[in-house]
Amino acid sequence: MYQQLAKYITDRIVVNDEQLQVILSYFKALTLKKNEVINNLGNPARRMYFVNKGCLRVYFVKEDGAEVTRRFAFENALSTSLTSFISGEPLTEITKAIETTELVYISRADFYYLLDVLPCWEKFYRNLLEFAYVNNTRRLQSFVTQDATERYKLLLKENPHMVQRLSNKLVANYLNISQEALSRLKSKI
Amino acid sequence: MYQQLAKYITDRIVVNDEQLQVILSYFKALTLKKNEVINNLGNPARRMYFVNKGCLRVYFVKEDGAEVTRRFAFENALSTSLTSFISGEPLTEITKAIETTELVYISRADFYYLLDVLPCWEKFYRNLLEFAYVNNTRRLQSFVTQDATERYKLLLKENPHMVQRLSNKLVANYLNISQEALSRLKSKI
Repeated sequence: MYQQLAKYITDRIVVNDEQLQVILSYFKALTLKKNEVINNLGNPARRMYFVNKGCLRVYFVKEDGAEVTRRFAFENALSTSLTSFISGEPLTEITKAIETTELVYISRADFYYLLDVLPCWEKFYRNLLEFAYVNNTRRLQSFVTQDATERYKLLLKENPHMVQRLSNKLVANYLNISQEALSRLKSKI
Repeated sequence: MYQQLAKYITDRIVVNDEQLQVILSYFKALTLKKNEVINNLGNPARRMYFVNKGCLRVYFVKEDGAEVTRRFAFENALSTSLTSFISGEPLTEITKAIETTELVYISRADFYYLLDVLPCWEKFYRNLLEFAYVNNTRRLQSFVTQDATERYKLLLKENPHMVQRLSNKLVANYLNISQEALSRLKSKI
């Protein structure tokens, strides 16, 4: 259950066996059913998740109820609503399992406790923040500088597995366009 | 010259006098003329800047040459192209002074050296990354979930000084709309 997470951690930071066991001991298992939501708007983010199997979808909700996906977290990815996890403010996005999803998670309190007691965890968090920053800034840049066709081409180039694995509906939602617009795009490329 | 930066640092991390002097010793002064550019697309980001006086504008350039502002860094703010600073990859955004701007800066190499030798600098970097992540993610959320009117209202609420201090042209560019669209918006609100 902790094997994938252990590899994820040791791929990123220098950590001895004892430290690794301490870190892993704070993670608990959780299995979500398809379409199960793991947080609610209005509450702060209280957990950081790691996906062993399945996929989480993190999405914003517009005032009119429409949804826009910020991110998909597939196997061997961490996922939380980091803005709320950092600030302690209420969530402004929802996380939902798009299929049966096996996770392990650590509470926000335990995550911050590890930051206090394990310098290597500070390095791990730095790595996580850097990755998250780069990801979201590329996504911001894509949305403000590219049209739908360019965004779709970028997705095909950088994340072809997403286009293969996800339904048209979800891919369209990730690009923030309608399914019809995605179909037109596909027929042109 | 280093007074504002010293305050910025001591407001964020616990640091003794000796450590602070070490940190400050790595910063050098630089004054930019109005419209002077401090980096070029194609090169990686090699410096982190702190604004003592003036304002930097960080912007993306679209394929057709149009510009979209990602961020303004006013007095007492750090600024770099963090994606490139982290990854070492070529810049995808330009930083320009919108007025005469007095800066101090640290090189990327020295910044990473301090991370290795000063644990308090790791805390400082964590704080910087968290702030940058939250900022950019809010901006991403605003672009994908809000129309121009909502984005303008949010700007008025959260950063009224930007609307007061910047030209209509720059405010419109920050909202990624035309100046004419901004004028229409203003007359309606």
